[in-house]
Amino acid sequence: MSSYSLGELARALGGEVAGNPETRVARVATLENAGPDAIAFYAQARFVRDLRQTRAGAVILGTANRDATALPRIICSNPHAYFARACALLHPAHRAVSGVDPLATIHPSATLGKAVSVGPYAVIGSGVRVGEGAVIGAHCYLGNDTDVGAETVLWPGVVVYHACRIGMRCIVHAGVVIGADGFGNAWEQDDRGGHWVKVPQLGRVLVGDDAEIGANTTIDRGAIDDTIIGDGVRLDNLIMIAHNVHIGAHTAIAACSGIAGSTRIGRRCRIGGAVGIAGHLTIADDVEIGGKTLITKSIAVPGAYSGGYPFEESRRWRRNAVQIRHLDDLAKQVKQLETRLALLERKDQ
Amino acid sequence: MSSYSLGELARALGGEVAGNPETRVARVATLENAGPDAIAFYAQARFVRDLRQTRAGAVILGTANRDATALPRIICSNPHAYFARACALLHPAHRAVSGVDPLATIHPSATLGKAVSVGPYAVIGSGVRVGEGAVIGAHCYLGNDTDVGAETVLWPGVVVYHACRIGMRCIVHAGVVIGADGFGNAWEQDDRGGHWVKVPQLGRVLVGDDAEIGANTTIDRGAIDDTIIGDGVRLDNLIMIAHNVHIGAHTAIAACSGIAGSTRIGRRCRIGGAVGIAGHLTIADDVEIGGKTLITKSIAVPGAYSGGYPFEESRRWRRNAVQIRHLDDLAKQVKQLETRLALLERKDQ
Amino acid sequence: MSSYSLGELARALGGEVAGNPETRVARVATLENAGPDAIAFYAQARFVRDLRQTRAGAVILGTANRDATALPRIICSNPHAYFARACALLHPAHRAVSGVDPLATIHPSATLGKAVSVGPYAVIGSGVRVGEGAVIGAHCYLGNDTDVGAETVLWPGVVVYHACRIGMRCIVHAGVVIGADGFGNAWEQDDRGGHWVKVPQLGRVLVGDDAEIGANTTIDRGAIDDTIIGDGVRLDNLIMIAHNVHIGAHTAIAACSGIAGSTRIGRRCRIGGAVGIAGHLTIADDVEIGGKTLITKSIAVPGAYSGGYPFEESRRWRRNAVQIRHLDDLAKQVKQLETRLALLERKDQ
Repeated sequence: MSSYSLGELARALGGEVAGNPETRVARVATLENAGPDAIAFYAQARFVRDLRQTRAGAVILGTANRDATALPRIICSNPHAYFARACALLHPAHRAVSGVDPLATIHPSATLGKAVSVGPYAVIGSGVRVGEGAVIGAHCYLGNDTDVGAETVLWPGVVVYHACRIGMRCIVHAGVVIGADGFGNAWEQDDRGGHWVKVPQLGRVLVGDDAEIGANTTIDRGAIDDTIIGDGVRLDNLIMIAHNVHIGAHTAIAACSGIAGSTRIGRRCRIGGAVGIAGHLTIADDVEIGGKTLITKSIAVPGAYSGGYPFEESRRWRRNAVQIRHLDDLAKQVKQLETRLALLERKDQ
Repeated sequence: MSSYSLGELARALGGEVAGNPETRVARVATLENAGPDAIAFYAQARFVRDLRQTRAGAVILGTANRDATALPRIICSNPHAYFARACALLHPAHRAVSGVDPLATIHPSATLGKAVSVGPYAVIGSGVRVGEGAVIGAHCYLGNDTDVGAETVLWPGVVVYHACRIGMRCIVHAGVVIGADGFGNAWEQDDRGGHWVKVPQLGRVLVGDDAEIGANTTIDRGAIDDTIIGDGVRLDNLIMIAHNVHIGAHTAIAACSGIAGSTRIGRRCRIGGAVGIAGHLTIADDVEIGGKTLITKSIAVPGAYSGGYPFEESRRWRRNAVQIRHLDDLAKQVKQLETRLALLERKDQ
Repeated sequence: MSSYSLGELARALGGEVAGNPETRVARVATLENAGPDAIAFYAQARFVRDLRQTRAGAVILGTANRDATALPRIICSNPHAYFARACALLHPAHRAVSGVDPLATIHPSATLGKAVSVGPYAVIGSGVRVGEGAVIGAHCYLGNDTDVGAETVLWPGVVVYHACRIGMRCIVHAGVVIGADGFGNAWEQDDRGGHWVKVPQLGRVLVGDDAEIGANTTIDRGAIDDTIIGDGVRLDNLIMIAHNVHIGAHTAIAACSGIAGSTRIGRRCRIGGAVGIAGHLTIADDVEIGGKTLITKSIAVPGAYSGGYPFEESRRWRRNAVQIRHLDDLAKQVKQLETRLALLERKDQ
């Protein structure tokens, strides 16, 4: 088990040490649960009580809070990001696989870079290229002619359909499906009322570098052109990205959201959980969208948008919700009252 | 690489050629990105600019738009469906597997039709029947006594629990789970406040012919009777179909939707993304439901239904949403104003 | 095939027999579809017509309905739970696997209890402990140092990341992912506008005893501390449980719901489908939440809460929804009308 002194941490990661730089920490923890061998971080005022009561050996905090505790501490501009890096130093990443398992099925025409790991029962198709140091987990499936960049990690059971590309240093969690057919169907009448004709999906999915994709998320291949996930994008679990969507670099989307076909989302957007974005829209850079919002129009101006329905006790909700169905009538009624009242007021003068 | 002249396309797929029938196309493309070797299609007025600027070698359009371009073209009644078929001609479907992989586990009592393909590490249980020409992808699991129809394709990692049936010419995408237990639980009080008793799920899932099921969608087995997916149904990704649901033929449901137990949906419905339909309802044929709508009552009349909350800037949303909690009061207040004003008006006469 | 007389059922499961105790039943069925060899149950008044018309050989009903039918019957306090147990007696559970398949990959340091079954192509990592009688389905992945309790059943394709624990007698359906990284990201400015720094996720997932987890549901590991699923919890399909969430014992959550990070949900809650609960909230015991509700604040008082938007014909929905964007203005306008009207009324006196 590795331990670091505050001085050593600061040499590796920057920041200023206050208090004894020889203070050693062996692990990270929350303020609430930390013991004397742990370092915690403080970034939000709502945790100030935890800060006062913490038994942590050391704390990471921002320059504005440099004196918020008397504990040995590291002062830096971004305590959350600093903490993330301290985690990585103190707790080296778990490696699920090491080496190429003899029970993997690798097509002879596939190219594996140096130090690639492949788990048992993984299937790597013809013409696949896997970059140096990548990890292909157990039960993964890389369709023909797929491309996985260097240092990318696929956790077990990831399916990548043929011809898709994943960049370097990505993390793809278990159960993710990349490159399944988009939902392309043409309606055709017939004498029994009609049926769907499948529109073959010929595009690919291209994922940039440094992206992370959460468990059981699905990203469909483009219909003709490609579906594109930018560099550094963060997709949480159980998200649906439909065909031909573009997601700009460093955008983050929380779980259970769905983006419909051909929509383009800008860079650095922050999209809450269970958000739905309709198809063929354009969302500007730096847009924030609140949880469970339905976006039905393009958004051209950066800013925060929301549309969740407020919850309340079911009894009251029933009474209020029923009025929504009369809201247009209510608005008209108020307008009429306004006119009638103005008439009376004029007479009264 | 195959290429077709417009004349050859029309002989294979119908339609009328305008311009040079010897014009050859080798691929399909969007109007926007097509080159001279590609054929594109035009069906919606919003793409008229793309039509004017396209560099496509040929265009497919409807009879109403026969002169909308001077390019070599095919005129037909349904350009979208025509395009779908042209795609299939010009771009033969990708085959993930060919032949029965020696690393599959196939129970000796299973019956495989002619020309069935089975990928590596697939598991095919006892009593399973797989029809002629079907493709069972890598890592698929067919539980005992399941039935997969001729020409059906299961992409990698599909799980079909015991005794379920999938019809002919279906496409089932990666990560789909068919036949898991429905959410059947009986509440039982006890001296510690109560607990759930599992209700065994004894029904099956029956999927008709020509259906397509999107990645990571789940269809639960019936509690006692069966869950039924009709012919030609289209289910997008990450959809939940609960136990005992019936979905009528040629209905399409977009991603992230959930249908609760025992609900019956008619034929040819079009259900948007992230729609929720409560349990034990009946939805008529030919119903359209807008994205993110919650359906809490049966729908007997074909037509379009919606219920998404409108989004706006978060600042304004906060102000408006808070008023929803007072909407019933507001409606009462308006009614009282109405009464009081009418009284004043009468006096005033 | 096993059959039971009503007398035998009552000896095994309790309850009082009315009518001939020698009546034999071989299967369970719904009232609607039962034949004379089947036993059905009646618990809700809306099925009274089915009760009158049923061809069932016997019926299970509550004490209040003891004379609601003249058929041979079992009278008990909780017909639904009784029926669940009768199902289990008459229809023994399907076993997907029996014995340890030679095609599984089991690390030599793993410990398997007596009578454990492991399906083909399962991967069991180093230091894993699997309790007596547990069933690990085909294609399952148990990361290093995971712990699966006695009699627990993992259906095919379940992924459990390293160091997570699942209790005894649990059922985990196909495609479930337990222990993937939580959505932990720290934003860091840079000269190109900023990027995310991954926050390593060091906690575990701990699932209690007697829990059931539906197909393709994902439960993320804790960031530092653990994500905790209590005893007897019921999670339906396609649910997202984010890092550090705690779910109290015997709580049930319906499909497509998402619980954001660090939220604590009490015991015996009943949460509908497609519900979203924001992060860092506390939900009391015995709370019910209606389908598609967005919960944005903690709930301290047990009771029923809802927040779904009412659906209507799209044409009317459009008119009403647009007024929501003016609701705050409307409320102000009504207030002003009130003031002006009161003034006129005072003058009029």
